Amino acid sequence: MSDHQMPPALRFMLAARRCELQQLEGLALTCELVERASELVHDLQRERGFSNVLLGTGNDRYRTALEQHSTTARHSEARLRACLEALDARVTQERPRLLNRIACVLHLLDGLSGLRRAIVERRVQMQQATGTFSHLIGSLLAVIFEAADTASDPGLSRALVALFNFMQGKELAGQARAVGVVGFAQGYFDQDLLARLDELDGGQLRCFAGFLDHADARAVAIWDEVQGCASRQQIEQLRTMARRTSPTTPVEGVLAELWFELNTRRLDAMQAVAQHLVAALRTRCAASIRDAQADLDSHRKLSRRLAELDREPGQPLLFGLAANPVSDAGPGEAPAGILDLLQAQTRRLHEVEAELQETRQALAERKLLERAKQRLMEQLALPEAEAHQHLQRLAMRSGVALAEVVRRILAQPG
Amino acid sequence: MSDHQMPPALRFMLAARRCELQQLEGLALTCELVERASELVHDLQRERGFSNVLLGTGNDRYRTALEQHSTTARHSEARLRACLEALDARVTQERPRLLNRIACVLHLLDGLSGLRRAIVERRVQMQQATGTFSHLIGSLLAVIFEAADTASDPGLSRALVALFNFMQGKELAGQARAVGVVGFAQGYFDQDLLARLDELDGGQLRCFAGFLDHADARAVAIWDEVQGCASRQQIEQLRTMARRTSPTTPVEGVLAELWFELNTRRLDAMQAVAQHLVAALRTRCAASIRDAQADLDSHRKLSRRLAELDREPGQPLLFGLAANPVSDAGPGEAPAGILDLLQAQTRRLHEVEAELQETRQALAERKLLERAKQRLMEQLALPEAEAHQHLQRLAMRSGVALAEVVRRILAQPG
Repeated sequence: MSDHQMPPALRFMLAARRCELQQLEGLALTCELVERASELVHDLQRERGFSNVLLGTGNDRYRTALEQHSTTARHSEARLRACLEALDARVTQERPRLLNRIACVLHLLDGLSGLRRAIVERRVQMQQATGTFSHLIGSLLAVIFEAADTASDPGLSRALVALFNFMQGKELAGQARAVGVVGFAQGYFDQDLLARLDELDGGQLRCFAGFLDHADARAVAIWDEVQGCASRQQIEQLRTMARRTSPTTPVEGVLAELWFELNTRRLDAMQAVAQHLVAALRTRCAASIRDAQADLDSHRKLSRRLAELDREPGQPLLFGLAANPVSDAGPGEAPAGILDLLQAQTRRLHEVEAELQETRQALAERKLLERAKQRLMEQLALPEAEAHQHLQRLAMRSGVALAEVVRRILAQPG
Repeated sequence: MSDHQMPPALRFMLAARRCELQQLEGLALTCELVERASELVHDLQRERGFSNVLLGTGNDRYRTALEQHSTTARHSEARLRACLEALDARVTQERPRLLNRIACVLHLLDGLSGLRRAIVERRVQMQQATGTFSHLIGSLLAVIFEAADTASDPGLSRALVALFNFMQGKELAGQARAVGVVGFAQGYFDQDLLARLDELDGGQLRCFAGFLDHADARAVAIWDEVQGCASRQQIEQLRTMARRTSPTTPVEGVLAELWFELNTRRLDAMQAVAQHLVAALRTRCAASIRDAQADLDSHRKLSRRLAELDREPGQPLLFGLAANPVSDAGPGEAPAGILDLLQAQTRRLHEVEAELQETRQALAERKLLERAKQRLMEQLALPEAEAHQHLQRLAMRSGVALAEVVRRILAQPG
């Protein structure tokens, strides 16, 4: 018996199951995209870092390393683009916001080769190069965010939220590396640079807390190792030193290179956490698809059996109550078998929905932040990065949490 | 130039737009389903009412009317099933929860003919008949709920929330009609019946407030007319009378018929509100599709123009910065045209998301109620309707809002 010969109630019940399976299959593609995006983010962070130190210190020994890292990033980019080609064929399954984020990434990637040439030929300011890389990295993180926000499976959604928070925290650590290079290269840190480092620290704390809220035990263990390693203490010592500098009491510019290398070691170690999260995502996704497939198969078998029983005269009533309108269940009341099945499915879908709600709540604050940023970009005609810094400074100056500043801005009439 | 020859960034941007259009087209089918479901709900409410009064009063003059109303309901059912056939072919676009709710409706509809025979032959208790009809009506309302909860267009989502709240309130009014028939038919109202009427009143107030929060001005105007009509005052007078009855001071059983007819007049008048909401939904959906189509067309034209400019040498840079890596925008920075387009789309999608969040919030309380009900059904092995009444009574006895009772139940470890 094909699904189409079944009674409509069973057909729709199976369609609901099949739809869940298809959502998971779409999610598998999205997870692959997320994996490629997080690899590219790491490569671009390294490339941005080496660009900074090359432009900041003028030390040509970073040039070869930069070119190597650019090549690595180009390979990651090619893998991401290949993955997008596969996604493209199935785009109708995807969500407009995810597709729009991908469009932004692709557009910014198109500008990358020009930037690379300008960096190697030293025709661009460090700050501008950093800004362009950061914009692109931000757009890749937005893809991971949308993937987490639209995932239909609670376990996968949780893993994606952990990954997004982690990548976001790591990106702030990468920005801190850049800010430090600027300060040490010029020999001192002014109030603006120090404030920026503090903001980035605060942001990292929030992001890594969000990561820990959603991560599995193994990810947490790898993270603990990263936190315990020696380079972190040395970075702290350089931070203390940075605070004591001034234009009249500068430090050696060579510290920029030490700061850069310590931070790079730390960021590379962090990537092990991201790699674990991505691998766990892949395993989990495959397992969920297997479960859903098995579940659909067993439901299909059960439905066929119920439908066939219904056709044989003299069998207990399953549909229509045509033979004997007053059964045990009472006239017109649906008999147990199918109704139980349907109610169990309703209950399960309720639970899935409630679980998804929990992880999505964790992303809600970030969405409000995005909206507040958009508001500032329009009202003050600021570019995105500056709107973000403006928000962080408002929070710092008024001594309230960033989330509270966001709420106040959105509460004002637009 | 076909979409596929375009640069990937533009292709994904168009895919995002196309995806929004497809969601709207799917929503048009869902709106049709909602229209059919709300018609069938009205017919079943009337059929339930006439079944009640026939079984409660034993007056055979209701029998012919009942048979007429059953025929009407059968026609509405056939129209709903035809609409589901069309939906079935496109199910992959739909959501599992909606499909599961449809499966429940179809299953319960299969039991209807048996119930109808049992009612006409008076082989079933009034309460059991009412319960079975109410269960089916509840499952149809759940379809409207899911449609509202998964709608991707804020305007349509708002209209669906208004409709759902209204239909829910009307259903409680229909249940009040049934409770009144029981009391007047036996000549008096005990504490349980009076408490039930009060609960249903409270529920109606909440539902109609939710309707008014989301309805358009015309719907509100029609509702004001319904509220001002004479039958409502007469119903109030009967309510006052009901409160004074007791087993020793009963009223005439014939009042059951008066109560029934006044309430039926009121419920029929209410249906005009639902009809307006459904018609507005249809108009709005068609307009949204037209807008999205026009929008996609103009974006496609614009994208082609941008893509062609990009291919002509000597034109201002649009992609890749291949010709001149240092443009006004700075090396590697994306030039204005396309980035503006993408950012505008991001902003718009943010706004849509924020607006949708507002209406979905309005449904969140109802979802929590469903979960609390499920919890009670499992823990106390209660059927759905009784779990609901149990919740309402807990609220009444402890003198707190229903939402608060729900929160307390869900806060307990499952």
